[in-house]
Amino acid sequence: MTFSTLQKIVLASGNPGKIREIQAILAEHPIVPQSEFNVVDVEETGATFVENAILKARNAALHCQLPAIADDSGLVVDALNGAPGVISARYAGVGASDRDNVDKLLRELDGVPDELRTARFICVMVFMEHAYDPCPVIAQGVWEGRILDHAVGENGFGYDPVFWVPEQQCASAQLPAAVKNALSHRGQALKRLTALIKEREAA
Amino acid sequence: MTFSTLQKIVLASGNPGKIREIQAILAEHPIVPQSEFNVVDVEETGATFVENAILKARNAALHCQLPAIADDSGLVVDALNGAPGVISARYAGVGASDRDNVDKLLRELDGVPDELRTARFICVMVFMEHAYDPCPVIAQGVWEGRILDHAVGENGFGYDPVFWVPEQQCASAQLPAAVKNALSHRGQALKRLTALIKEREAA
Repeated sequence: MTFSTLQKIVLASGNPGKIREIQAILAEHPIVPQSEFNVVDVEETGATFVENAILKARNAALHCQLPAIADDSGLVVDALNGAPGVISARYAGVGASDRDNVDKLLRELDGVPDELRTARFICVMVFMEHAYDPCPVIAQGVWEGRILDHAVGENGFGYDPVFWVPEQQCASAQLPAAVKNALSHRGQALKRLTALIKEREAA
Repeated sequence: MTFSTLQKIVLASGNPGKIREIQAILAEHPIVPQSEFNVVDVEETGATFVENAILKARNAALHCQLPAIADDSGLVVDALNGAPGVISARYAGVGASDRDNVDKLLRELDGVPDELRTARFICVMVFMEHAYDPCPVIAQGVWEGRILDHAVGENGFGYDPVFWVPEQQCASAQLPAAVKNALSHRGQALKRLTALIKEREAA
């Protein structure tokens, strides 16, 4: 590991919630959003979460000349053979709203009985020491649930209103942010990634 | 997990040693080499080990219509800022022999003192349930060592004659195959991958 503590890390995301969460765990590294460097988003052409996360991290590392963290995530529904998967954010088309995507998902699952509506949120996070790092640190989080037949709750975003969380007996959109962050695919991936980065630093 | 035990898995490699090793651990799945299906090798255009492993697994899964396992591996040398990395097998040029690659590595490290010749073999193995699997199972193995200043030993292949293994006090090419397989980056990745595949099957 050639990068040291106090070295800045760029985050290939403009989401202030994500930045705060990562900063809290990786306290010894200042985390800066790529927007501070006017980085233009890269096209997510990968067919897997990990390929898309690497594309985003590489783009940020290249433009900012800093180590970079990126994530890619989505919803995988068994009855739809894994859809919407890597295109979760644009399931109903490019520029689709969360509502459009949820509506399409509910239509596709119309008539599918409860026990066959199993699904999971998946998040893959990567850390690249530089744009040409051949061996990114990779961490994955999986959050198992089931797709409801109508939307409930006001929190979160994306598919949260139709994602039933069995261990909480409510939809993801009914969970307070702190509870969701502790359980969610993204929270799990982040905890694993930061532990793996610290291992790599210590090596 | 929609694939069941007894389901064949194709291996994106023609190496009989790798096939035997994987078959021994994943006993409930017949492992078949992609050569049985006349699969044409895909070009390794990735800049990371995991991207190349995914390219190979996707290619095999697509052509064989079966779940697929692939790996990509290489040598990462600190004093060379990570080279030869993903181009380890063609470090001295396309079609280079093991000897050409080793000679180039020794030239590049000429004069670098022992304590700065740290290096590691890295292997990333992936399992894809089908060619469009958005979330491959990914396992990594790392084998730490140091680059010698001359080649020794007759076993193994690639950079084994110049890779000093501290815990065995000899070069990788001086280890019997069984010892190497138990310690090596590839052995570690394979053990992790098979454990993760079994977890996914059980889920």
